[in-house]
Amino acid sequence: MAESWTFLDTSEPNFRPLVVIELAKGTKEETIAWFMKRIVDKKGNGGAQLLVKPLVTENGDENIYLVGASHLRLLLGAEAVGLVKECNDNSMRAFTYSSRKTFKDFADDNHDFLTMAECQYIIKHELENLRAKDEKMIPGYPQAKLYPGKSIVRRLLTSGILVQIFPLHDREELKKLRHSWYGRVKVGYQPLDEIRSYFGETIALYFGFLEYFTFALVPMAVIGIPYYVFAWEDYDKYVMFATFNLLWSTVILEVWKRICAIMTYRWGTLLMKRQFEEPRPGFRGVLGVNPVTGREEPVYSSIRRQIRIYLVSLPFVCLCLYFSLYVMMIYFDLEQWALDYHEENESNLSNLMLYVPSIIYAVVIEIMNRIYRYAAEFLTSWENHRLESSYQNHLILKVLVFNFLNCFASLFYIAFVLFDMKLLRQSLATLLITSQILNQFAESLLPYWLQKRHKKRMKKRVCSLKTDMDMSLVEQVNLEKEMGTYFGTFDDYLELFLQFGYVSLFSCVYPLAAVFAVLNNITEIYSDALKMCRVYKRPFAEPTANIGVWQLAFETMSVISVVTNCMLIGMSPQVNALFPDSKMDLVLTVALVEHLLLAIKFIMAFVIPDKPRDIQIKLAKLEFESLEALKQQVRVTVKSIVG
Amino acid sequence: MAESWTFLDTSEPNFRPLVVIELAKGTKEETIAWFMKRIVDKKGNGGAQLLVKPLVTENGDENIYLVGASHLRLLLGAEAVGLVKECNDNSMRAFTYSSRKTFKDFADDNHDFLTMAECQYIIKHELENLRAKDEKMIPGYPQAKLYPGKSIVRRLLTSGILVQIFPLHDREELKKLRHSWYGRVKVGYQPLDEIRSYFGETIALYFGFLEYFTFALVPMAVIGIPYYVFAWEDYDKYVMFATFNLLWSTVILEVWKRICAIMTYRWGTLLMKRQFEEPRPGFRGVLGVNPVTGREEPVYSSIRRQIRIYLVSLPFVCLCLYFSLYVMMIYFDLEQWALDYHEENESNLSNLMLYVPSIIYAVVIEIMNRIYRYAAEFLTSWENHRLESSYQNHLILKVLVFNFLNCFASLFYIAFVLFDMKLLRQSLATLLITSQILNQFAESLLPYWLQKRHKKRMKKRVCSLKTDMDMSLVEQVNLEKEMGTYFGTFDDYLELFLQFGYVSLFSCVYPLAAVFAVLNNITEIYSDALKMCRVYKRPFAEPTANIGVWQLAFETMSVISVVTNCMLIGMSPQVNALFPDSKMDLVLTVALVEHLLLAIKFIMAFVIPDKPRDIQIKLAKLEFESLEALKQQVRVTVKSIVG
Repeated sequence: MAESWTFLDTSEPNFRPLVVIELAKGTKEETIAWFMKRIVDKKGNGGAQLLVKPLVTENGDENIYLVGASHLRLLLGAEAVGLVKECNDNSMRAFTYSSRKTFKDFADDNHDFLTMAECQYIIKHELENLRAKDEKMIPGYPQAKLYPGKSIVRRLLTSGILVQIFPLHDREELKKLRHSWYGRVKVGYQPLDEIRSYFGETIALYFGFLEYFTFALVPMAVIGIPYYVFAWEDYDKYVMFATFNLLWSTVILEVWKRICAIMTYRWGTLLMKRQFEEPRPGFRGVLGVNPVTGREEPVYSSIRRQIRIYLVSLPFVCLCLYFSLYVMMIYFDLEQWALDYHEENESNLSNLMLYVPSIIYAVVIEIMNRIYRYAAEFLTSWENHRLESSYQNHLILKVLVFNFLNCFASLFYIAFVLFDMKLLRQSLATLLITSQILNQFAESLLPYWLQKRHKKRMKKRVCSLKTDMDMSLVEQVNLEKEMGTYFGTFDDYLELFLQFGYVSLFSCVYPLAAVFAVLNNITEIYSDALKMCRVYKRPFAEPTANIGVWQLAFETMSVISVVTNCMLIGMSPQVNALFPDSKMDLVLTVALVEHLLLAIKFIMAFVIPDKPRDIQIKLAKLEFESLEALKQQVRVTVKSIVG
Repeated sequence: MAESWTFLDTSEPNFRPLVVIELAKGTKEETIAWFMKRIVDKKGNGGAQLLVKPLVTENGDENIYLVGASHLRLLLGAEAVGLVKECNDNSMRAFTYSSRKTFKDFADDNHDFLTMAECQYIIKHELENLRAKDEKMIPGYPQAKLYPGKSIVRRLLTSGILVQIFPLHDREELKKLRHSWYGRVKVGYQPLDEIRSYFGETIALYFGFLEYFTFALVPMAVIGIPYYVFAWEDYDKYVMFATFNLLWSTVILEVWKRICAIMTYRWGTLLMKRQFEEPRPGFRGVLGVNPVTGREEPVYSSIRRQIRIYLVSLPFVCLCLYFSLYVMMIYFDLEQWALDYHEENESNLSNLMLYVPSIIYAVVIEIMNRIYRYAAEFLTSWENHRLESSYQNHLILKVLVFNFLNCFASLFYIAFVLFDMKLLRQSLATLLITSQILNQFAESLLPYWLQKRHKKRMKKRVCSLKTDMDMSLVEQVNLEKEMGTYFGTFDDYLELFLQFGYVSLFSCVYPLAAVFAVLNNITEIYSDALKMCRVYKRPFAEPTANIGVWQLAFETMSVISVVTNCMLIGMSPQVNALFPDSKMDLVLTVALVEHLLLAIKFIMAFVIPDKPRDIQIKLAKLEFESLEALKQQVRVTVKSIVG
């Protein structure tokens, strides 16, 4: 079974390009030679033992390389990254090369045992784990310092020598996926397992959540329609609707955890051990010793980070929130002023003037959102988080709070200061519908159109060139490297989060919100699928076991919605009419109901298990087996010692 | 290093009796012989490979056996139970016999490497893991059925052949422990590490919590004193006090998690893998296959258990709660009636009559508590939980809810229905102080006195007997087997929980509660220590990493206390005077403040990390090492295959 690869052994018959490396134009030869040698070098010499092949393009000054690996290398890599696969006995286990025969569909000649996304993930992992040995710098670039154990690829990226690394699309597969995903008009589930094996778990989980969330909204939408059709305004019907909504939103969030566990168990990521996280590329610090790994790496005191977070970022965010509220107040003043002006001198101009404040406010909000996003990214980066995950969490929190306020502050103001339910309903409908339309346009259709135009131009250019290289591959790489990069599921989740806010926060005022949300999400699935398949570079797969901080965000929103709905119901004239003598009794009753609902929510969240019973049993079985294996080992020791 | 033990090799020079097994009088000889053979038999033959020695007592019809083990056997057992010990490099690692040299204080002749409590825990574990092979029943008892894999000791216990198993006290150690624990009058910390090595982690953690909780109450007590001394009644001072209390109670519960992590890391239980839990002794079911272990054992459908819980237990508990409230209402009626009677015909008799309702109510509550406790135990047992831990959780929940209502319902009624703050303060003080005094008496002093009397009698009896056995050992075993059994920390935690309720729920009405709680807890430490050392049999050590469901119970109480305190402050005449025109504004302000406080609580609980940074780093280091070991293994495989 022993194989050996010579340096740049690109003639290997089964070389399949998986990942593209683009180096900067004019990168020094010695740097390229050193980097390539490290990629193909044997593990024992500190290499990654992968295959690499330069891509010959029309103009020779582009440094593009294709990376692949032998089937055996990929299997060993799968063990190194801790991939979990299904065994012959239908249990999920961490793949090891020595136990490979026990895995389902494994055969030495079955090259489909690992999905392409998994292979690409393994190659990415191996490349990122290429570490400096005794090099003090990147050869040819004395300013790009290295120290033992530093990831070479990360240093190449931060010093601009490496432009990008991205996985290649598989046109055949993509075509099949597109067809089963959105190619035909059908009512049914998305092919989540296929999405997962093409795009990885993080993206498949997003689409899974989007689909689940859409289905979960259907009952709310169905119950909401008669309220609109028959113009039900009785308080008891509203109370029923709101109570149903609140309990339902708790149930759907709890049930999602179970569904998520089922999916990620099937995909193996529920069992996958978290890899030790490397410092993120932007992390700065003085060279020290990491207390966990014992390796030399930049260290930055946690206290200084805390100081930056609590003394700079937190006040800044509060200031921004205050400013946003201030802008909102100006908007309401302007609105009032326009209304007064219109009443005083009624004319066509004044009629038009009525719309000016709203337009200005919408534009200002959009500008503020963008500026704030930059500021948040800058601040979070300046906070100097060691890990990408904690950077992401801090960024998400900052952006979430601000977006929440920007979206909902005006609605809260209308509801609880102006007490104007008609205006609230109107604003809610306007905000919900316009934001949905704008989002879908800006997010998918516009990039798709741009991409299509670009593709046509590229095709013309590429077709004029003839070499002995596989034509379609050169073309494909050139096309894909110019495609936009998909920056993760953040904006997609944010959109869903705000939508959930529109649906749940004021559900008893505008029962139709769920209907619009459902309609939007159905098209959202298609436009997001289009975006993934057509607009962006293929992203690397990211194994994940849950939707992370978003679960918390949605749960928080559903708690806030209990409070707002109870207040709205308490303010409704129908309920007020029930307590003609004493407003006091009304308020106390509402407060009591609110506390009861919150208590029920928490009890429900506590009582519903996060994992279904069969998954629990499977997990317990694995744990039991590892304990038994330990005991067996002890027994063998006992026997050998005691006799 | 090879040793061999012959059957009943009790002449082994270093036989140290650790655990006592008491069989029923008149147990058949064949049963005893079979059981003893299994205990000493080699692991390979399905035995426990322990040492056992009969105890010769004055009247020969008692079947008492002493169990011990060789040093080597205990070390191998330590590996089997997954004991975590400190290494030479100060890290904590799971002990394995092969890596024994790397552990701190390990030497082949150092028999103190394992504490006596650990040795006894290992022996208990080994005895409980003695499993039936092909026996269909216990020899001599055809009605005591066995099936392959059934724990023999559990079946012996349930069929009444085995009366009890308990660990022996170590008089020398106990004397030392008593001296450093409560022997001298001192202000300072308890010797928690010594308590842990004598009584195990669960009990040490209880005393750690008791001590921590007492210290944590000191600031509340100190701030509370001037309120009593200067009779401060200003609302602003109360608001300050209550706010401080609420935030403080959140902080102390969060900080406890950190302290708990520090302690259990040092003790090794934070890292200890949970053993697979056997079905609890009372579990019944039809013989089936356990889906986790694949072993034959009784199984019981989870759905039927759910039905029993939700359709029988839950309604029953609700009914009991309702009944308890009903009794409370009768009490208030009686109270009113006595008051009216006293006012109408004032006399000595009528004056005495005033106390009658309180006394009756106190007695009735006590009776109800006891009956309910039996009912709860019966119901929880009937629910047929497979695991002892889930049985305990369901029992704790049932008892907790009922006790909470019994203790606090009258106070809630006085506060929020009668609006009588003076009566509330008075009732609170009476309830708190009397319950504390009664508890201390009933819990420790009374049993201690009974125990002392019993001991004197025993001493006389034993002294009249002379055999060649070690006199003091016979005496000790006979004494200890008659001692009461300590049923775990449940009642101790319950007492603390109710005390926390008195201190936090109505803190702004009675700031002196914390003072009494601190005073009580100081004596509680002493009386509980006395109870553990003098009154009860030594309990088996129970490794644990936290205080479990009690953490949740205390946190829930602190959430409820936010609500009650806000309501109390809102009802105070001083705050009412601030809103002379509109009660509405008052209620809304109070509700707003309450929601803000709750939000702050949850954010604080979220922001304060559950484990201190250095423990986090140590845990991450261990995880990193195991990942690296995995990679190293892969690398070796790569080398051997790819060359």
